[in-house]
This record gives sequence, structure tokens and C-alpha cells, in this order.
Amino acid sequence: MARPEFKTPVCVLGLGLIGGSLLRAAVASGRDAFGYNRSVEGAQAARFDGFDATTDLTEALTRAAALEALIVLAVPMPALPALLTHIGQTAPECPLTDVTSVKGAVLDEVTAAGLQTRFVGGHPMTGTAHSGWAAGDARLFVGAPWVISVDDHVDPTVWSTVLQLALDCGSVVVPARSDEHDAAAAAISHLPHLLAEALAVTAAEVPLAFALAAGSFRDGTRVAGSAPDLVRAMCQANADQLLPRVDRAIELLAEARESLANNDSVADLVESGHAARTRYDSFSRPEIVTVFVGAENWRRELAAAGRAGGVIRSALPRLDTPR
Amino acid sequence: MARPEFKTPVCVLGLGLIGGSLLRAAVASGRDAFGYNRSVEGAQAARFDGFDATTDLTEALTRAAALEALIVLAVPMPALPALLTHIGQTAPECPLTDVTSVKGAVLDEVTAAGLQTRFVGGHPMTGTAHSGWAAGDARLFVGAPWVISVDDHVDPTVWSTVLQLALDCGSVVVPARSDEHDAAAAAISHLPHLLAEALAVTAAEVPLAFALAAGSFRDGTRVAGSAPDLVRAMCQANADQLLPRVDRAIELLAEARESLANNDSVADLVESGHAARTRYDSFSRPEIVTVFVGAENWRRELAAAGRAGGVIRSALPRLDTPR
Repeated sequence: MARPEFKTPVCVLGLGLIGGSLLRAAVASGRDAFGYNRSVEGAQAARFDGFDATTDLTEALTRAAALEALIVLAVPMPALPALLTHIGQTAPECPLTDVTSVKGAVLDEVTAAGLQTRFVGGHPMTGTAHSGWAAGDARLFVGAPWVISVDDHVDPTVWSTVLQLALDCGSVVVPARSDEHDAAAAAISHLPHLLAEALAVTAAEVPLAFALAAGSFRDGTRVAGSAPDLVRAMCQANADQLLPRVDRAIELLAEARESLANNDSVADLVESGHAARTRYDSFSRPEIVTVFVGAENWRRELAAAGRAGGVIRSALPRLDTPR
Repeated sequence: MARPEFKTPVCVLGLGLIGGSLLRAAVASGRDAFGYNRSVEGAQAARFDGFDATTDLTEALTRAAALEALIVLAVPMPALPALLTHIGQTAPECPLTDVTSVKGAVLDEVTAAGLQTRFVGGHPMTGTAHSGWAAGDARLFVGAPWVISVDDHVDPTVWSTVLQLALDCGSVVVPARSDEHDAAAAAISHLPHLLAEALAVTAAEVPLAFALAAGSFRDGTRVAGSAPDLVRAMCQANADQLLPRVDRAIELLAEARESLANNDSVADLVESGHAARTRYDSFSRPEIVTVFVGAENWRRELAAAGRAGGVIRSALPRLDTPR
């Protein structure tokens, strides 16, 4: 199966901001790439820009099956079950990945559709405040982290195929288990959104606040400017992981509140917060180069390397006979 | 007393980041300005840069009294009581202002020292991550909001003197009552610091979090990088106003948590947060031009105008016989 010069064709399902950018980036990297979009407007806009796009899902999947293309799920969560059923009927052997911000819930859907053996989840951690085909950009992924799942079930060949796509798009790849990804995303993305919303609401209730608001408020509420539907969708899809993080933040604030009321001090929270942020600033990002994909324990080794901050910047060596 | 061409001399007590920048800006605007600093190093550094600075407080205050200079308190809160006692003995007739981030507590100290009739509090809302004379910059105040207190006691002549200094430094002036300033500062500065610290601590406890952290986390924790001593000092000095804001933020998060757990929805918080942030983005900043300083109800009119977003960009007209 190792064909170093061959680049797997790509079939992108959903041509919104991420899917549309991915179709552009895949073509720019020299791949045979084509897309499907449910709405006529999105598909027409893509064709108008010179890309190969259809609103006929069966046509796209039949072609993907013939080419053994990598199918990329780039639709919102609610659209997944119907799409997966269709894939299972028309292109069940194709390697499969996704670009959704919650990994556990997607894996559950894929498993329910019986497609998990060819599936490796992914999450390019990028975006803009805009959406739709028109907002897309072939360079959206350049320099951005792209998480690729190393769950117990993942196949090394499919994994390497997804890795190559992410690298072709200019991303740095972070290997991670789906459950760990979701716990981390709750802490570094979904919780910050809820804190920003709470800050915006609290300040809006104080008469002079907006008149005096400056850097601390602007930074602290920036993500409250995100589209409410998107924020709701990602928080709600990751509720299991988000709830304990919200609880922890409330606990820390309540402790600081008690300490301020009773001892006139917020020392504990301020000092531990500063220490944590300082640790983040000095967090190193070593390159992962020594793991052989397909070797014994390769998934566990990659998960550990990713957890330690490791990133993949170029194709990893392969063992073509997995042990 | 109206001498349009005359610029009141300025005596800056404390030559750290803010005081040192103010001394530079006052000199740059053509004023007779001089400073006092407790540490030899700070005063020497200022003199080395060509400024008039001493470590002899009595000398500085005697000179201020002779010149009828505007004295600017630019020392940390704990240093205030001793400084005010010294001013009461040596320069009790000088107009007096400050540049501290909490206004009610400073007003209390000034009142305790019997100096409130000549005092008008101020708060230039600017800064950097650095401190000390060397970090100062004559342009630090350019474009920044500078709050000037319009409490019931303030004298119109002193008020206009402080206004002129802030405008000379390039600031836009926001008139506000001390208590309203402190309530707003709790919401837009002190609460954001505590939320940032809580976010940093919460994320640091999740193994993969730093490896995936990007924009939402970086923005949401930026102010957790501030020096812990400064964050503690400002939060603790404004505890009375900060506590209800922390309680409100906890309440909003707890409601969202319950709604997420029980109804799988964070709609209420996300939608109200987005609406609040959108309101902030469209908050208008009209120029205040029609209030006569010293006219009947001038303090109340300025407070209302500031609350509505109004800013002062050039000297206001004066009624020299207050009614």
C-alpha cells in the first residue's frame, strides 16, 4: 500500500468554512479533490470558483468509492447520522475522517453506523468569525494545530492518510485520544466561551462599565462575539466534559470570593493563576519524529507525546505490517 | 483665577510607571514639573534622563507649596497615609489629585487626612506589563481614558486644573463619581482578572489542555500574566465592589451549568452574553462640550454624561463664580 508519490484523492462532504477551505487546500496541494454540498448556493459558489462540487450525494460517494478517496465529514453534528448511513451504503470501504470540534460524539455516531474501522477523527483548530464557502481560504490551516485521533481502534494506514492531508494543508499535527481531546477542548475553548459570556452580562449590568471598558474587558469578552448558535452547539455537544470544568471554575471563584470576604485576600487564586499562565507561556512544543506508525503501542506513544506538547511537522515513518 | 495661558506647575509624588510617565508628559506639554521618589535609584534614573527629581519629600512639597503646584499622588495605596500627613503639614493649600485604580479608598484616605476640599481623584486607564521609571513613556496616556472624579465635594477650579493636565497628556477624559468608577472597575477590570486566573488554573489541571490551547485560551488568560502583587492589590482595595460582581458571575455560570446538565442547553447565557458584547461594540462615545464647570448641578451633569459614554476631548467652559 505504500506509494510515496501517490496522494489519496479527497472527497469533502460539506463546503462551509472548514470544508470549503479544505477543498481549496487539497487542490492546492496537487490532489484530486471534489466536494458535496447540500445547498445549491454553496455548490454553485464552489463551482464558480473553479472547484469540482455537486449537490448529489450519491454521485459524490460513488466517485469516492471508485477512487478509494479519503472522505472528510465537514457537516454540522446534526447532519451526521443521515450522511453516515449514506456512506455505509455507497462507500463503506473508503477511509474516513472528520473536522468537527467534538471528537467523542462523532466517534459514537460513526460507530453506530458501523464505520469505525476505516475512521480516524480529526479536528483542525482554526476558524474565523465568518462561515460558508465564501469565507473559506486555502491557507486557513497553515500553522494551525490539527488534532488527529489515536483511539485504540484506529488503523495505521488510514491514520497516515489523514496525517498526510493535514500536513499538506500546512498544519502541525497533535496526536490525541478522542476523550482527552474533548476534556482539553472543554477547558481551553468551551469554558472560555462561557466565562466570556458571563463577563459580558455582568459588566452590562453596571451603569458606567462600558464607558470605562478597556483591554481586560475586551480580551475577556472577545469570544462572546462568536455566533451564539455555534457556541451553543459546541458547548452542548461536549456537555459531559464541560460540566466538570465549569464546576471547577465556579469552585475556584467561590473560594476566592470567600477569601476576599473573610480575609481580604485573593492571594491563592491570583498566585496559582499566574503560575499556571506562566507555565503555559513556557510550554515547549518538541517535534515528534521517532514513533513508527503501526509499531507496537504506536497509538499510546503518540497520545503520550501529544500530551507532552509534541507536534508532527512531517510524515512519520511507517511499519507496513502492523504488529 | 482664570489665566488661560498659564499652566499650573506639577509635582509628581512617586516616579513608577504612571508617575514617571506623567512627569515626562507634563514636561513635554511645556509645564514646570518635578518629582519625588522614595528610592534613590528611581530619582537618579529620572535625573539621568534630564528630569527634576528628588528623594527629599519636604523639599518637593515646600517647592510645590511655593509654586501652588498641582500635587499628583502616584504611590501605591499603602504609602498614602504617611504621604498625606506630610502634605497636610507642608503643602495643605495645593490642589491635589491621584492616579490610583481605586477611587473610593483613596478618597477615604484623603478625607481622613483633612485634604478633601482641594482633592479631585483621577485614574488614567492605561499601563503596561512593566513597572518603574525605566518603563515610563511620555505618550503612555495618549488616547487612553482618564477618569476624573465628580464627587459632591469637588472644587470646580481644582477640577479644571486636573482636566487640563489629563488633556495635556493626550487622554480623553471620562467624568465619573468615585463609587460608580469603583463599581465599573470591578466589572471591567478586577472581575476579568479573577476569571482569567480561574481559567488558567482550570486548564492547567487537564493533561492535554496546554497542547491544544489557542486563541480563546490565550485571550481569556492574558491578564493572568500580570504581576500577582498588583492584581491582588487592586482586587483587595476594591473588595466591596468586587464581591457582588463575583457573585453575579458565579450565579450566571451556575445557572448555565444547571441548564446544561438538565436541559442540555446553554442558550440563555450564550445569547445574553452575545447581546451584551454586541451592545458594547456599538457603544457610542459622544463628546461632552456643553457643561459649564462650576454651574449649578455641573457635577451631576458630568456624571450622567460620563455614564452615557461621554468623553471630554478639550477644555470645558468655566463659570468662575460657582453658584
